[in-house]
Amino acid sequence: MTQLEAARQGIVTEAMKTVAAEERLDAETVRARVAEGTVVIPANIGHHALHPWGIGKGLRTKMNVNLGISKDVCDYETEKEKAQLAADLKAEAIMDLSCYGTTAPFREWLIAHSPAAIGTVPMYDAVGLLGKGLKDMTADDLFSVVEKHAKDGVDFMTIHAGITQEVAGHVWKNPRLTNLVSRGGSILFAWMYMKGKENPFYEQYDRLLDICRTYDVTLSLGDACRSGSCHDSTDAVQVSELITLGELVVRARAAGVQVMVEGPGHMPLSDIRMNVELAKKLCHGAPLYVLGPIVTDVAPGYDHITAAIGGTLSAACGADFLCYVTPAEHLRLPDLDDVREGIIASKIACHAADLAKGVPHAADWDEAMSRARQKVDFGAMIPLALDPEKARRYRESSRPEDENTCTMCGPMCPMKTMSAILERRSRTK
Amino acid sequence: MTQLEAARQGIVTEAMKTVAAEERLDAETVRARVAEGTVVIPANIGHHALHPWGIGKGLRTKMNVNLGISKDVCDYETEKEKAQLAADLKAEAIMDLSCYGTTAPFREWLIAHSPAAIGTVPMYDAVGLLGKGLKDMTADDLFSVVEKHAKDGVDFMTIHAGITQEVAGHVWKNPRLTNLVSRGGSILFAWMYMKGKENPFYEQYDRLLDICRTYDVTLSLGDACRSGSCHDSTDAVQVSELITLGELVVRARAAGVQVMVEGPGHMPLSDIRMNVELAKKLCHGAPLYVLGPIVTDVAPGYDHITAAIGGTLSAACGADFLCYVTPAEHLRLPDLDDVREGIIASKIACHAADLAKGVPHAADWDEAMSRARQKVDFGAMIPLALDPEKARRYRESSRPEDENTCTMCGPMCPMKTMSAILERRSRTK
Repeated sequence: MTQLEAARQGIVTEAMKTVAAEERLDAETVRARVAEGTVVIPANIGHHALHPWGIGKGLRTKMNVNLGISKDVCDYETEKEKAQLAADLKAEAIMDLSCYGTTAPFREWLIAHSPAAIGTVPMYDAVGLLGKGLKDMTADDLFSVVEKHAKDGVDFMTIHAGITQEVAGHVWKNPRLTNLVSRGGSILFAWMYMKGKENPFYEQYDRLLDICRTYDVTLSLGDACRSGSCHDSTDAVQVSELITLGELVVRARAAGVQVMVEGPGHMPLSDIRMNVELAKKLCHGAPLYVLGPIVTDVAPGYDHITAAIGGTLSAACGADFLCYVTPAEHLRLPDLDDVREGIIASKIACHAADLAKGVPHAADWDEAMSRARQKVDFGAMIPLALDPEKARRYRESSRPEDENTCTMCGPMCPMKTMSAILERRSRTK
Repeated sequence: MTQLEAARQGIVTEAMKTVAAEERLDAETVRARVAEGTVVIPANIGHHALHPWGIGKGLRTKMNVNLGISKDVCDYETEKEKAQLAADLKAEAIMDLSCYGTTAPFREWLIAHSPAAIGTVPMYDAVGLLGKGLKDMTADDLFSVVEKHAKDGVDFMTIHAGITQEVAGHVWKNPRLTNLVSRGGSILFAWMYMKGKENPFYEQYDRLLDICRTYDVTLSLGDACRSGSCHDSTDAVQVSELITLGELVVRARAAGVQVMVEGPGHMPLSDIRMNVELAKKLCHGAPLYVLGPIVTDVAPGYDHITAAIGGTLSAACGADFLCYVTPAEHLRLPDLDDVREGIIASKIACHAADLAKGVPHAADWDEAMSRARQKVDFGAMIPLALDPEKARRYRESSRPEDENTCTMCGPMCPMKTMSAILERRSRTK
């Protein structure tokens, strides 16, 4: 039984209880939202190391760390270190995007060790797993990859079921600056084009749902047609795919399969609210998982920042799940430092959005920090920092004459000035 | 004659022509906006090295770099390096916030060498310049500091003329988590409290305007009551000061003095639009200069990111001028690396906002980058990057087997996949 099927039968699962405790909600509220499909709990029945997280309506914004090897940078020990770092920094999800060679041992290791929800894009693994070229693959082959990942214990999978031949028609009619920039989506599109066939995950969607239901894999409907440049944002291609994704959400829910929807991409900040609201509307309130959005194309080396800007506004407008972006985006496979920078920037975006959308208790952390700041109490401030190690390093690199100030203002500290006035006033009143 | 007085008389100054050329507007449009006060061109008649920039309605968002020494970190050579870096990275403005000892030689050096507009907060310099404690200073003393800076050639000055005894009444009635966090504002407030007197810059505002008009100093009305924590955002204290600032805008314009208004501070993302719109309304469309806003209090070490998030949305909503924030904010006086990080993050915010608010030609840069990206042409991408040096370093650190890919996707590059399909299709059609 999937979390969704259980919820519909009125059953409060252990995973729902865990989620409720984390979010300080009552378990019945979580159950009701899982039942209506506005919250998902990615939790493959085979992922025993999982600490289940809820993603969706009214919950804290969650974040995902992409990792995995490529053909050019193929060192699984580094990928394990990245996974450990993600765990240390409390990322709620990890996607293994390994896209070359034999990926199973690393995936198995991740699932055996990781409390984070594990996601994959099975299309990345098709060539490596099947040992044949794309044009020789059958629809059955592609399903066999999905089934393998589901059996391995993957909690959520990106499947680009929405890029149909109908959507392809819009691709031909609406030239773009950057075409399709989804790896999985473009491979599937190439398969469809070479074969002259319909998208197998669309055509045999019930078969896909059967696999997902069996293992309680949460379907993450991929946005193959997301914009890869601000110029291409919110065009006919993207919206036609989104319409299809919304229809597929309804079918997944009806089949008892948990489902979320992926969103763009690159776009100007001014397009973000519209995109989030449209995705929520067309997809019937399904949890929204956004990639970025990256709000300008010109900052390679700093796309953790461009994505944090877009991610904050997206989540404040209703997106539920942010995919981190690292400074290496558009330039190379990220190294360990890139992963750290990406995670921190994404956590800032999640938390800032939670403040903006009024997630209960989100402001407690900020208030504790600001109370410490008012007292100029660095001993209290540093452990409260999102990255205490960096805050400590900065503080220790530059010590003020008066311990109870910092080297920015020194004796001109406004906190001290105001405290002195307020104290004097309270004495004289 | 100030730029504002000239504009009102129908005169198109050389500075207006320079601004018009930079913005690709006709000079008459710039003149008309300067005349109505929705655009300012900070340009002290004594700042001969200045390359004049316009700030305000319909123009590209501009950014300011804070630098200057403190009592604890007092190395003017480093500050000169920061100024050079700001020039190299094309910051439009530099505020010298030196707040200890004899500041004049550095200020004079800056004005002699800097094409950026130079701003100061004269209150920071009062103790150092006057050589006496705050409680011994007279109103005349404070005006003498302003006059000195104006004579030195400072283009814009933060003056906290809006924190009046009436506003102080709101300070007492509305306890805050972090009181006042403005250095200049808190010093002035302390002076008013100790003396039991009205704010001299408010009481003798016409005297202030006389100085500004004589040298064409643009008045930057400081927000002493900006929120220093998300908790304190948009309270009675802040809004009561803003009301006063709006009244002072009208008087400045009537006196022929260019004027802009400073805005908060720390606030949740959800408060930003309201704040920008309220400031624009109450201050009659005066150019808005925002500090941050910082959208969560918990990320010391990363406040260049929290501020870039808030700054992008602010400027997209109508703010015209962003004050950069560095990773050192709340921890120490920034070093050279911090300044670089802060400038880049702020430039990202400015440009992303320009895309969002549809500044003419802003998208050209992104489109050029995306065209290069579509061709996987790193030779074209790297010089187009906001920070070509970092982009090049990343690219060179991780070379793919196939030069025409990157190590993220390698042979699975969606750009290459799609180009191959489109080419094949165009051949077979």
